[in-house]
Amino acid sequence: MDKTLAHLQELDAADPLRHVRDRFRLPDGAVYLDGNSLGPPPDTAQAHLEQAVTEWRERLIAGWFEAGWAEAPMRVGDRLARLVGASPGEVVVSDSTTVDLYKLIVAALDAQPERRAVVIQPDDFPTDRYVATSLTSRTPGVEVRQVDPDRVSEALDEHVALVLLSHVGYRTGRLLDMRELTRAAHDAGALVLWDLSHSAGALPVDLGACDVDLAAGCTYKFLNGGPGAPAFLYVARRLAGRLGNPIPGWFGHADTFAFAERYAPAAGARRFLTGTPGILGLAALEGALEVWDGVDLRQVREKSSRMGDVLIALIDEACAGRGVTVVSPREAVNRGSQVSISVARAGEVTGRLAERGVVADYRPPDVVRFGLTPLYTRYVDLAAAGEALRSVLDELTARAAP
Amino acid sequence: MDKTLAHLQELDAADPLRHVRDRFRLPDGAVYLDGNSLGPPPDTAQAHLEQAVTEWRERLIAGWFEAGWAEAPMRVGDRLARLVGASPGEVVVSDSTTVDLYKLIVAALDAQPERRAVVIQPDDFPTDRYVATSLTSRTPGVEVRQVDPDRVSEALDEHVALVLLSHVGYRTGRLLDMRELTRAAHDAGALVLWDLSHSAGALPVDLGACDVDLAAGCTYKFLNGGPGAPAFLYVARRLAGRLGNPIPGWFGHADTFAFAERYAPAAGARRFLTGTPGILGLAALEGALEVWDGVDLRQVREKSSRMGDVLIALIDEACAGRGVTVVSPREAVNRGSQVSISVARAGEVTGRLAERGVVADYRPPDVVRFGLTPLYTRYVDLAAAGEALRSVLDELTARAAP
Repeated sequence: MDKTLAHLQELDAADPLRHVRDRFRLPDGAVYLDGNSLGPPPDTAQAHLEQAVTEWRERLIAGWFEAGWAEAPMRVGDRLARLVGASPGEVVVSDSTTVDLYKLIVAALDAQPERRAVVIQPDDFPTDRYVATSLTSRTPGVEVRQVDPDRVSEALDEHVALVLLSHVGYRTGRLLDMRELTRAAHDAGALVLWDLSHSAGALPVDLGACDVDLAAGCTYKFLNGGPGAPAFLYVARRLAGRLGNPIPGWFGHADTFAFAERYAPAAGARRFLTGTPGILGLAALEGALEVWDGVDLRQVREKSSRMGDVLIALIDEACAGRGVTVVSPREAVNRGSQVSISVARAGEVTGRLAERGVVADYRPPDVVRFGLTPLYTRYVDLAAAGEALRSVLDELTARAAP
Repeated sequence: MDKTLAHLQELDAADPLRHVRDRFRLPDGAVYLDGNSLGPPPDTAQAHLEQAVTEWRERLIAGWFEAGWAEAPMRVGDRLARLVGASPGEVVVSDSTTVDLYKLIVAALDAQPERRAVVIQPDDFPTDRYVATSLTSRTPGVEVRQVDPDRVSEALDEHVALVLLSHVGYRTGRLLDMRELTRAAHDAGALVLWDLSHSAGALPVDLGACDVDLAAGCTYKFLNGGPGAPAFLYVARRLAGRLGNPIPGWFGHADTFAFAERYAPAAGARRFLTGTPGILGLAALEGALEVWDGVDLRQVREKSSRMGDVLIALIDEACAGRGVTVVSPREAVNRGSQVSISVARAGEVTGRLAERGVVADYRPPDVVRFGLTPLYTRYVDLAAAGEALRSVLDELTARAAP
């Protein structure tokens, strides 16, 4: 692994995605390896947001039709669908990831009353586990089975209604095999729900080809929609007619503005909309997604994989003999778009990295997470991160010495 | 009732709220009587939104703490609390009104397993009815009783867990007696949940003094938060510890950023947060609420009541003998901040009013709704509305003549 600065500069110069970085205004001098927590604003996000405010002021209530607000959850969903291998009408943008997961989990249980078990990962993102686990206390007979993804097949039987899995784990960045695990769930007669929060925009996702039933994810990480940007949910077309939204609201109605006496669900994923969509957040996201025009996700993946390999090599060198463990998979094929290390005093390490201009993430109790976002991360940023990490560990070691 | 233009101009000149209109940039020449659907942007909403984008770009992930994003749902909630008679910690801004209603309805049922009935209004806003009614099919034993607000007491017995009422009805603008109906629910041992969508910012609301248990409402009408602005929910402090959020997510956790293994609810209304809050929407709302600084809601109510009286008189005059019925209560004390009429071809009437620069709302099948928003509506606007209505009815009558 050639990880000299000269070589990294060569890789940057040859990077086919290099020009996309110009769409982002990053703070001067920052090495931002936290785009897997919050992406920076693309220029088009700000432009769309300003446009939405102008429409609000000028069109007022008429904006719902004249400015296309009423269709925004579907229109932005269709744009997003192209990034995750879904078809038009299968993706809508709505609510938060947690609320969307809740709707889909409950819908899956409701559709299969003879199956009462939900399989989840014990190390999954807390909110995914909270929302799934809470159903056991609230819904008679519902059971949650927590199993490691390697042992999912052992947990599958005729009682399982749904398998909920994160495509890429938030702590380690481990990438699961969507096709294989989906097939295993289907073989047992269960549905599968993928959380794409750490994979949408990070690597090619093909929900259609993998025959996935349900998915949800956030848009403020690799998709750069802004802090707390609205989430998205996916429902396979073949399945939507069988599923009901447990939080039925007027925007999921077949005819929202008829103010009808009775609820009648819209077709497709749209039935999983609930209340009035937040147009300002949708506008920023719609703009942010424009940076993907012309971007080949295979190139994103290729760069991300190579960056991960480089960063692991740099970390190995900087941290040799210092009790630091790379907890992300070392083989790029099993890794999402981040490199995580386990280290003592991880929170302090993260803080000292930030003082040196390298922004990473602390995940309690012991993980420091470096996100790789190929649209704007450069190879030379990795050298800076490796150097900063070495310096921080030197400092902490010196302080700890007698 | 003196409704001459000269008198209306005098009323405008003497209006103690007159200066607040300068905070809004309204389209030239528009008579906007639809602020009860979507309020226009206050200057401070746009300023706060721009500030949030700057913080997003400059602070990136650090914005969650350095820019106060993580506390925004509570901070904006506390600001809103002052407008609805709640105490700090009792109001949070989160999700959509429908999702908030769902959480509170389910929480109320969960907390009283021996009571399975929910009382709702048959003419309530569709989304309120959809979300309440859907629970009957999904939750064994849950029963929904639809009764007119005048007959709520007849529907109350030891089986009722919750009474869900809209403080001001969306079609007729009828204002219910919050204190009396809350007392009646309590006398029967039930909890009460008020939908404040059409009263927050329209008139003084005193949740505390009325001993209200639960409330929710939208912020894009009289509160001018923007299209699809986040909703708010209220939980009385005395009650919060007994209620659980049925959609528990990491932002309702007692320690969000600990990524804890188990869910532990935060104190107060905060436990009803779920996913990552949408900061752009919150920022616009936070700015929009600044226009209320120094505004006395009793003055708002006084102006709104007088405006309604004037508009009803103008409508009576313009529509005499033309089959138009004022369906809003004629006594200001029973009316929110709108005047609704029932008229044939109401959709067409609304369209023709808009062509004349008077923006009202059509609510199928037969209602035209004129919203009164005292922060920026002028008395002279009412004269313009009456004149436009007369002209539209003249036109339609002439066309219908043989």
